[in-house]
This record gives sequence, structure tokens and C-alpha cells, in this order.
Amino acid sequence: MINSSTSSASSKARGKTSTKEAYEQIGKKLHEKKLLMATLKDEITVLKNQNPIDKDAIKKKGKEIDDLNTEISQITKEWNRANPDKLHIDPEEFNELLTRRFFVVPSFEIYGGVAGLYDYGPPACAIKANLLDLWRKHFVIEENMLEVDCSSLTVEPVFIASGHVQRFADWMVKDVLTNECFRADKLVGEFIDTQLEKNPNLSQETAEEYHLVKKKIDDYDGKGLDELIKKYGIKSPTTGNELSEAYPFNLMFSTPIGPTGKVKGYLRPETAQGIFVNFKRLLEYNGKQMPFASAQIGQAFRNEISPRSGLLRVREFTLAEIEHFLNPERDVHPKLEQVKHIRVPFFSRENQTQGLSPIEMTIEEALEKKWLTSFTHAYYIARVKMFMDQCGVLPGAIRFRQHLANEMAHYARDCWDCELLTSYGWIEVVGIANRSCYDLERHSEHSKNELVAYETFDKPIIEEYIAVEPVKQKIGKILKKDQEPVIEYLTSLPDEKKLELQRELDQTGKITIRVPELDRDVELTSDLISFPKRENKIQGTHYNPAVIEPSFGIGRIIYCLLEHSYWVRPKQEHTDEDKLQRCVLSLPPVIAPYKVVVLPKLQNSEYEPVVAKLQKLLSRNGISYRVDTANQNIGKRYARADDIGIPFAVTVDDGSVSDDTVTIRERDSCEQVIVPMNEVVSVLTNLIDSNKTWEEIKQQYPEQKQTASDKVGKKQVK
Amino acid sequence: MINSSTSSASSKARGKTSTKEAYEQIGKKLHEKKLLMATLKDEITVLKNQNPIDKDAIKKKGKEIDDLNTEISQITKEWNRANPDKLHIDPEEFNELLTRRFFVVPSFEIYGGVAGLYDYGPPACAIKANLLDLWRKHFVIEENMLEVDCSSLTVEPVFIASGHVQRFADWMVKDVLTNECFRADKLVGEFIDTQLEKNPNLSQETAEEYHLVKKKIDDYDGKGLDELIKKYGIKSPTTGNELSEAYPFNLMFSTPIGPTGKVKGYLRPETAQGIFVNFKRLLEYNGKQMPFASAQIGQAFRNEISPRSGLLRVREFTLAEIEHFLNPERDVHPKLEQVKHIRVPFFSRENQTQGLSPIEMTIEEALEKKWLTSFTHAYYIARVKMFMDQCGVLPGAIRFRQHLANEMAHYARDCWDCELLTSYGWIEVVGIANRSCYDLERHSEHSKNELVAYETFDKPIIEEYIAVEPVKQKIGKILKKDQEPVIEYLTSLPDEKKLELQRELDQTGKITIRVPELDRDVELTSDLISFPKRENKIQGTHYNPAVIEPSFGIGRIIYCLLEHSYWVRPKQEHTDEDKLQRCVLSLPPVIAPYKVVVLPKLQNSEYEPVVAKLQKLLSRNGISYRVDTANQNIGKRYARADDIGIPFAVTVDDGSVSDDTVTIRERDSCEQVIVPMNEVVSVLTNLIDSNKTWEEIKQQYPEQKQTASDKVGKKQVK
Repeated sequence: MINSSTSSASSKARGKTSTKEAYEQIGKKLHEKKLLMATLKDEITVLKNQNPIDKDAIKKKGKEIDDLNTEISQITKEWNRANPDKLHIDPEEFNELLTRRFFVVPSFEIYGGVAGLYDYGPPACAIKANLLDLWRKHFVIEENMLEVDCSSLTVEPVFIASGHVQRFADWMVKDVLTNECFRADKLVGEFIDTQLEKNPNLSQETAEEYHLVKKKIDDYDGKGLDELIKKYGIKSPTTGNELSEAYPFNLMFSTPIGPTGKVKGYLRPETAQGIFVNFKRLLEYNGKQMPFASAQIGQAFRNEISPRSGLLRVREFTLAEIEHFLNPERDVHPKLEQVKHIRVPFFSRENQTQGLSPIEMTIEEALEKKWLTSFTHAYYIARVKMFMDQCGVLPGAIRFRQHLANEMAHYARDCWDCELLTSYGWIEVVGIANRSCYDLERHSEHSKNELVAYETFDKPIIEEYIAVEPVKQKIGKILKKDQEPVIEYLTSLPDEKKLELQRELDQTGKITIRVPELDRDVELTSDLISFPKRENKIQGTHYNPAVIEPSFGIGRIIYCLLEHSYWVRPKQEHTDEDKLQRCVLSLPPVIAPYKVVVLPKLQNSEYEPVVAKLQKLLSRNGISYRVDTANQNIGKRYARADDIGIPFAVTVDDGSVSDDTVTIRERDSCEQVIVPMNEVVSVLTNLIDSNKTWEEIKQQYPEQKQTASDKVGKKQVK
Repeated sequence: MINSSTSSASSKARGKTSTKEAYEQIGKKLHEKKLLMATLKDEITVLKNQNPIDKDAIKKKGKEIDDLNTEISQITKEWNRANPDKLHIDPEEFNELLTRRFFVVPSFEIYGGVAGLYDYGPPACAIKANLLDLWRKHFVIEENMLEVDCSSLTVEPVFIASGHVQRFADWMVKDVLTNECFRADKLVGEFIDTQLEKNPNLSQETAEEYHLVKKKIDDYDGKGLDELIKKYGIKSPTTGNELSEAYPFNLMFSTPIGPTGKVKGYLRPETAQGIFVNFKRLLEYNGKQMPFASAQIGQAFRNEISPRSGLLRVREFTLAEIEHFLNPERDVHPKLEQVKHIRVPFFSRENQTQGLSPIEMTIEEALEKKWLTSFTHAYYIARVKMFMDQCGVLPGAIRFRQHLANEMAHYARDCWDCELLTSYGWIEVVGIANRSCYDLERHSEHSKNELVAYETFDKPIIEEYIAVEPVKQKIGKILKKDQEPVIEYLTSLPDEKKLELQRELDQTGKITIRVPELDRDVELTSDLISFPKRENKIQGTHYNPAVIEPSFGIGRIIYCLLEHSYWVRPKQEHTDEDKLQRCVLSLPPVIAPYKVVVLPKLQNSEYEPVVAKLQKLLSRNGISYRVDTANQNIGKRYARADDIGIPFAVTVDDGSVSDDTVTIRERDSCEQVIVPMNEVVSVLTNLIDSNKTWEEIKQQYPEQKQTASDKVGKKQVK
């Protein structure tokens, strides 16, 4: 977690979120100015139509209009910046950092690349490893989950059973001349956005229709989309050509497996199915104990029609998924008590449809209000919130949004997305779905394997029934080969009928029955047969477990953490460093690609043994670090470490040689303290593990006076 | 690393390797018995042809033959077991363990599965995570490698450049009636194996031909394989039908990317290309410093024609690859000195062709003998050997085999495979290839991007040349517009010609030249032009870096480690536990899925707080553990932990409640000591990190007396 002292230092300068109220106030102001503009325009028209023309008055009015225009454009900018549904960072500067420091680049860039595929360079790769490590500790180890590692290549029957072959598709249209492909729903959505933006004078009726269509866009099928495209006259956005009718396009990559080409395979679009098809073995491995959770980290693939939003909609990505299996009749979680107090910003279905904001409340309150109806689901929402906090998401830039009925996946009963605020808007990074019993039921049915668990009742259930009890020896002698059809027929009768026959036996000593199979009447006396009351003890029952599935898009989380931790250090008066050197990623130590950078202050051979000693110490104590010995001034090298979010710098200088001390610099505040060599590891470990804050360390050790060359890194934000 | 004390306890019972000498001695004995058999058969034929027939003599001889047959069959078994090219474990029992404890199972088993795809269950998944963690520490962190994470989906131009589209193929034949597919080379190989095995009386000539064909099988193209199939009359092994002609089958899975179906994509068959295409960015990230290494862990895919050998030839697998880039003119490694003493069993090309055994020598010796010619290559071979030792491979079951000229991949200049001995024979687990400059040259050429590095010379190279130096103002006035073609022509002349012209100028004061472009003679005097000697200082040069590539098949390593660590504890007299409970995996702690199992000796609520305290202690100290509270006797639970290779058990019993002590049990010896609760963590940490041996711990703490229920785990092998 970010030390409280350091996060406050940087948060003012970091990409920030706004409140809805501020946004609405500016909007109101903008509206007033636009009304005033309309008045001024009317007035100037009047002036121009006067005879004789008062040139001075027109000129004065024109000046007023120009000034107001400038003002409106400034307020519009301000209004955009205050949009609470966007994170406000400079996208150009931010993307420049990502490329320059080789966080993420398009795959096979030297061959022109292809949309939706990206490679992670060293810093992003290290962040990913740290994030997955934290995920394993927070979920897999903490909850004793059974982690598995299944094939990405999957045979078709699995996805027929899961519903993906039939339903995992988008509606697509083609440019009739160039064959360029577009997602039909996105085209309609974009058309509407453009109309709403460009035509502020739309009739209220039209605007309302647009809003309604956009809200329900997921409800339209191919025919519905075709109608909209025709009605709005939507054309290919790149050529203006006509568009084809909408047709479904399955998002799974397919490839034949084996040399015959006959075994149809797909690249999995989610890792979950690998867990479902192994359910029996997992249950067995868990000693047949329910409930339990299984987890998997792995690649998934989706052949997106038009990938965009940079890293947020890609064709290959890492998922970390949990499938928690439970008896739907026993939806409890033993550790729910421990997380009931966790506060979560809930954005319920009702909130959304009524245009309200998310409401923050505890898990306990959400359960009381019935916003959440599954205890296990509630437990995982709390755990996801705790995880995201540890990763260093910005407060105010996280919410849990409930899916609307029309956007739920075909398998889901309820779903809450953990969304993070980015410069692209709110983005889903974790889906926490209640898949109910859908998956295991489908796979049971399709594979003809019973994927069930067994529940022993606390005490057996007693079931009464009316038995058919022939006196075998006697009845056999009388009925001979007819015995079997007679007993079968009697057994098939409902309990009431059997009771009736017993009453008749009791009263008359005999019964006469017509057995359909024999087509004759059979007479039975009370010494041959009876229909007594009996009891069944039912010890337990088999059931299809339900599933709660938290599913993490690892690449999306990484991207959002980079945006959330990114800020630009305000330019300093006395330095002439260029702006690129002032980027900082305030990643928490647990996520940062390296915890420490080791910097000899100058190129000085006397420093070398000190650097070597530091390297050994850090390695032995498992603290990941980089050494930067480039022949550049220390300020530039601090800036390079800030660029990739290294939280602490250890600088070797003359004091290291004379007094066996080093300087430790904190990234966000740029403050430095002098620490004896033999205390470096304990100071760093305490800071990294958040056992001590930077403020505490500062009180413990003398501050390092900064020289001119440190300036670029000097603390400016307080 | 395995504690020396424990490995000796188990190594006698573990799957063992034999010496070539023992194998040959038994072979000799077998040969003698077979000769004797031939004699006996001759003798009985003679007896049968006698007139009158001596029935008693025939009967006696028949008995002799029967006895000899039994003896031969026993010796044959013994001979097979002594085969030094196989690891001798019971495959049935071993595979039963893998499935029963959910190490590895066929993917989508409930749908019948498909060859070559496997899922890892919890224990194998944990082993994989540990192995990759060790790999990262041993290679990436130790060598400051730049780790990247690239797309598996790759566009076609990358694999056209790499040569995979054209050359990454196998020759395949089809059953003409059923269309079943086979690898042509494998069919021929199997045919030869069967012939050599079944027909011990093959003529020496035929046998020699078979051996030769098998050795050179990789040299045959489609036509050559067709001829062999025709010559030997090879038919479909499953139906006996005729086979089609051989045709090439590319082993890459292909799938179109994007909705148009026009962008051809492949699933990468190796991760290396992702690193090569990012070379420029990597070099930039490394501050343009050479040499450097980049690393990548990721999935790779090969559409094997007929996957077999269980986990050893699969269609989807995890690779961990290193690409070390260097200037081929400066093939040195600063840390070679530190590994020169490492002993490696080298199986050179010459050893193989001359039928010799591998020879163990140090890296230094191998370089002196010129078995290894690249210093960087030698360094990595040493590092791979050190890594495999840490993973716990059996001594004697590892060798480094040089590729024969005909088996080298199309890009390789030299290649040494690290091979491990398994029940399937020797298996390549790491390929350490010298790819020379192949990759970057190809990608430079195909992408039109110069993938080069720059080398600054220690001192500039001085290059002399003869300049053309006109006196510009004067010559311009005289030649006017002809000036340019004249100077161009003179500049294009070779240095000798220019020297000749200067001599002429010196002697006669003028030269007359014929300029082809002007088609006239031009006269120049010595005041207009001169041809002096000048020098160029060349500061450095651009070059295509060479590549040394150690490439690790992670799944294969895991499988081999399981075989190497597997043994069966000898049955005990006083227990009636079934044989399945006696399996042990003597994995070293660094690889074992969990370091510790916590076991309450009985179901006793008094033990619960102790177990909870242990869990906290272990978690806080980062020691991975499982708790086994199943309602089974402690012996069965020890056996369950042995099954998956957990090296230490901590048992909670009455002593834990009364004296605050626990029992620590060592897996391989089954010995137990009593340790105070507050020393548990330090004892375990010392054992896990190999800071102390089990022998040392035993001397420090009192031994625990074992009760009857412990018996199944009691030490038997010493």
C-alpha cells in the first residue's frame, strides 16, 4: 500500500477524479453563457437590420460576442476536465511514456503490427509478475484455492456445452464495396454520440429516442440493428459506402487440431471452462468437501471485430479467474464476518436506470438492503475491493456496477463489475458473476458425466410410503408366471390406491384387480399380499453446485494502475530539464517493477565496492532492484527511476566512502535521508512492507541536503 | 537442493540408472544362451529325424529347451531393466499416482480428450510456479535479463522471415482408405525397430542397412521416405491399408485474425521471435549497451501429427527462453570464470557417431579441447547444468548431447541439448543453440528495419585513401557545367589510377582524361586539381548481433523431475496398507508443491488453536503449507503428503498442548524430532534453504518415538 505520507504528496498532481456536483455546476454556468450568447446574437441581428446602421454599436456587440465565445470555449474545456466519468491525464504525454520506457508496444511493430495485439516490455512484465504474485497470495493462498493450469486449445464440444459456439458472437456489418467490417452496435452508438454532440438543437423527442436506443443497444438483434442503420442512414464511417445486412460473427479464434483437419478446436475465450470440465477431479482432490474454490491464471483469446481503446480491448489477454463452487441451498461463507465492514461504492441497477450516482456502503448494509442477495457473492465483492486498494487504485476512481438485465452474459444470474475510472471512461476490470448452476448442469448434460456434489443431511429425512409386500412362496405357487406383471402393476399404483386396496383386504379378506398387461381379473387374498406403511431414511442428496466467479482482466488492471499512478511533477524554476523527465508513476511498492534503484552519484571507482555490497545485501534479502550507472547526472537518473515507478533510490556518494552511509530518496516527495549502511535493508524493508511511513523514517534519520544536480527530483508538491 | 542426508536415504529405492558395462555383460550372457538354444534346437531336430525315434531322449531335450527358454526370458527382462538408456520405474504405478493425485490429466477428459493436450492439477501447478520462480531467480534476476511478454498470436510475415512457414514441417502419409495420418519418418523408424527386435536372425547386411537408415532418418525428404516405404512394404499400422505419398505438413496452428479472414495468423511454435522483432526497443531500453540477454516465459503451440510419450510430446506447452545477443567478434562472458570448474557430462557429435559414452569434464576442459568453441555458449551450458542440479535431477541421469549435423534446426550453427533420462529414454529438456546472426539478419531483410547494434572501436581505425581535390573557384570558371561530371568521373576511379594521375601531374604539370559522359578529352593542369593521400578515422561499426539461445521445455522438465524423484517405499511387515500408499516423490524443497504439511495427530478440539497458530506462523514467514485434517490415521496422511512430495510434516499432538512442542518429520527418512513451538519456523527455514541438514537438526533435538500408526511412514531404506 502507498504510505499515507507519500500518497498525499503526489495525489494533488496525479490524474484526478471530479465530483458530479462540480461537473453539474460548470455545466449550468455553460448553459447560462450559451443563453447569453443567443441574446447577443439576436441583438446584433437587430442592430444590423437597423437603418441607418450604427457601425460602432455593431462593432461593440461583435466584440462582446467574441469575448463571450472565448469564455464559452474556456468553460467548455473546464467542463470536459470536470467530467466525473473520465480520468484527466494528458493522453499524448502518457502514451509517450508507455512507449518510450517500453511498457507496452504493438506486437510485431516492425512488420506494421495488427490491431489488438500488444507486447509487454521489461517494466510492464515485472509489474505483471508482481500483480499476479499479489493475486495468488490474496486469493489462492489465503483461501486455500485449488489452482489449475489448463489448455488454451479446446475442442468444440466444450464450447457447444458452454453456449459459446452458439452465443459468443457480435453482429457485424460490411462495407459493401471494400468489405471492411464494423460492429453494428458500435456504429449505431457512434452515430448517436455524434448526433447528440454536434446538434445541440435536436428536438427533445429525437434526443430522447437516441438516448433510449443507446441504452438498449444490447437488446437489438441483427434485424433490429439493420432497421436502425436504415432509419438513421448510417454509412461506412471510412468510405461513406452502403453497409451490408448485419450477420453474427463468433468471437472465438478457431483452428483445427491434428493433421486431418477434422477435429475442430478453439482458443478459449475464458479460462473458466477448464475448471468446470475438471470439476469431478477437483472435488475428489478436495476430499469430496464442499464448498471449495478453484483458480486459474492463463491466456484467453477473443477475435474482436474492431479492437480499440489501446490496451483495453485486445485480442489476447491474461485472465485470472476463480470459480467458487457451493451448494446453492447453503450460500454462506465462514469468513464473511471478517469483511462485513468493508466499504464499497455500489452502483446498482436502480441507481443506473434512475440516473443516480453510486452509493458507498458496507457489505453488511448492502446485504441488509438486499442489493446483494448471495452471501458468497458479497464476500468476493469485499475481497476484490480489498485487492484493488492494495494495488493502489485512486480513491474515488473505483465503483462496483451491477449489470443491467440486458447486458448479462447468457450464463449469469447476477453480475457486479468492478470498474475503474480511466481517460477512456469507466472500464470493467473484474467481473464478479453469480453463474448459478448453469455451467455444471450444461456440462453434465452434454458430456453425460454427472458433475454433482453430495450433501449429507444433518439428520436423515424420513419419507413415508406404502409398500407392496407379497408373501412370495404362496403367491408364486398360485400366480406362477403371472406373478411378475401383477406385482409390477400393483407397485405402479399411487399410494392412495394401495391404501384403498389394503382397506378392502382388511374388510373383505380379498381384492380383485384387473391387470392391463394380462387382460384378466386376478383375485388376491389377504394371506398372499399386504400394503403396509413403511419409511425411507434419506441420508443426503446429490446436487449441481452453483458457481460464484470473480474474473480478473490482468492487462486492464495493469493499464488502469498505470493511469491512476501517473502524474507530472510541476516544472521547476531553476532547472532546464525537458518535460519528458518529469513523469512519475506513484505505484505502490508491491506493484512497482523494482523496489529500489541503486545510483552511484558520480562515475567514481571508489563507489564501486559500495555498490557491489548494496547489490549483495538487496539480493540476499529478496528486494528487487536495478543499478543505474549511466554517465548522466543524478537528477536525470532519478527522473528515469520515477518514470517507471521505482519507489526508493539508494544513492552512493562520498559519505558512503568516508562514513559508511548512503542516501535513501522517496520517489513521491523527493525527500532524502542519510542512513548507515548496516541499517539500509531494515529501513527499506519497513518502507516496502508499509511497516513504517516515510514520515517516521524522516524523524529517525538526518535529512540529506540536496545539491543543484538533485533539483529535478526535488519535492514540489506538498 | 536435497539435503545430503535425505537423498542418500531414498536414492537406493528411487528409479535408478545403470552402467553401460553392466548392460553389456548381461547382453553377452543373453547372446551365449541364445547360441546354446540354437544348438539344442539342432540337436532335437536330429533326434526327431532318427529312426527309430528315441522318445525319452526327445522328451529330455524338450525339457532342456523349455528350461532354457524360461532362463532366456528372465535374462531378457533383466537386460531390459539394465538398459542404461532408460529409467527403471513401474510406469503403471507411476502413472496411477499422477492421475490419482491430480498432477496431470488429459484436457477435457469428460468429452473424451484429444491427444497431446493436458491440464495440470493443483500439485503440478504449484510445482510449475516454483520451477518458474527458480528459473527467474537463477537466470533473469542473476543476469539482469530483460524479460518480455509477447503475443502468442502472430502475423504471417514474422514466420516467413524466421523460416517457419517454409521449413517448420514434418513429412506425413495418409492411410488411403481411412485418411488416418502418420509421420512418415516415425513409421519407417518403428518398422526398423520391430524388424530388429523380432528377427534376431537378420542378415548382418540387412541389420546394418536398417541401423544406417534409422541414424540418417532426418536426412530423407518426401521422395526418399516414399522409396523406403515402398521398399520395406510398410502399410498403415492400424489397418494394414496402403499409404499415400509423403507430403509436408506445417506444424504451426493457423487461424485468421480479425473479421475479414484475410490476415493470416499462427500460434507461435516458440517464444523467441517475439524477442527478435523487439530487438531495437530492447537495445534502446538497455541504454544501447551490448551484450545483453532478453527472456520470455510463455505458451507455445505445435500441431504434432501424432503426439505420444505422454507429457513429452504435446501440442501446447510452456517455454522459458533466453536470447543472449552478442557481437560475434567479441564472444566473451565476464562471468565465465565463475563457472569454469562446473563438471558436465558431454556427449559430443564424435562420441555419438563412434558409439562412445558421454564424457564428464569441466567447462574449462571442454573449451580447451575445442568441444565448445563459443565462450558464451559454454557459459550457458554451465548455468543450465547448475540449474538442473538445483531442481533435483538424478545424478547420472543428465547429459549434454551435441546435435548431429543432420538434426540441427535451420537456424542453428551449433546446438547442445540438455537431456534427462526417463522411462521413455533420453529426452531433450533444454536446447542450447548457437543461432549465430541468422534471426536478426532475416528480420532485418524482411522487415526493412536495420536490427543492428553499434560497436565503438577501442581506438578509431585509420583508413588511408586517395582524395580528389579540385581548386573549386578556378576549375569552375574553366569547366563550367562540365565540372560536375568530370569530378564525379575522377572520384569513381580506383586509388591506383588516381596515384598515376598525380604522378603525371607532378611530372608534366597536366593530365588529359577522357570523360565517358562528355565523350571528349578534358585537360587539367596542376593548379586546378590534385590527388593527395588522406585518412579516414572510423570510430565504430554496425553489426547484426549473434544469438545464443537456451530454450527450456518447462512441462518436460516437470515430468522428468517427477520420474527422477519417484520411488516406492518398501512394504512393511507389520502394516496392511495397500501399495498405493507407499509412493514417495523426493522433490527438493525448492520444487516441492508445498514445503510443509500440518497434521493434527487426532481429531481433537484441543489441537485446533495450535494448528491455527502454526498456520499464522508459516504464512507470515512465507512458507507454503497445506493442512490435512481428514479423519484418517496419521500414517495414511503422511503417505498422502509423501505422494505429492511435501518434504516436511509438522504434527500437532498431546505434547503440543502440554509442552508447547510439535513433531517435525522428514519425508525421505521418516525420522521425527520434537521441536519447541517457538523454534519451528527457524528449523523449517534452515531445512528448506539447505542451511542445515536433517542430520544436524537430529543432533539438536530429541527424537520422537514412533507409534504403530506412524508405521507406514517409518524409515525403511537406509
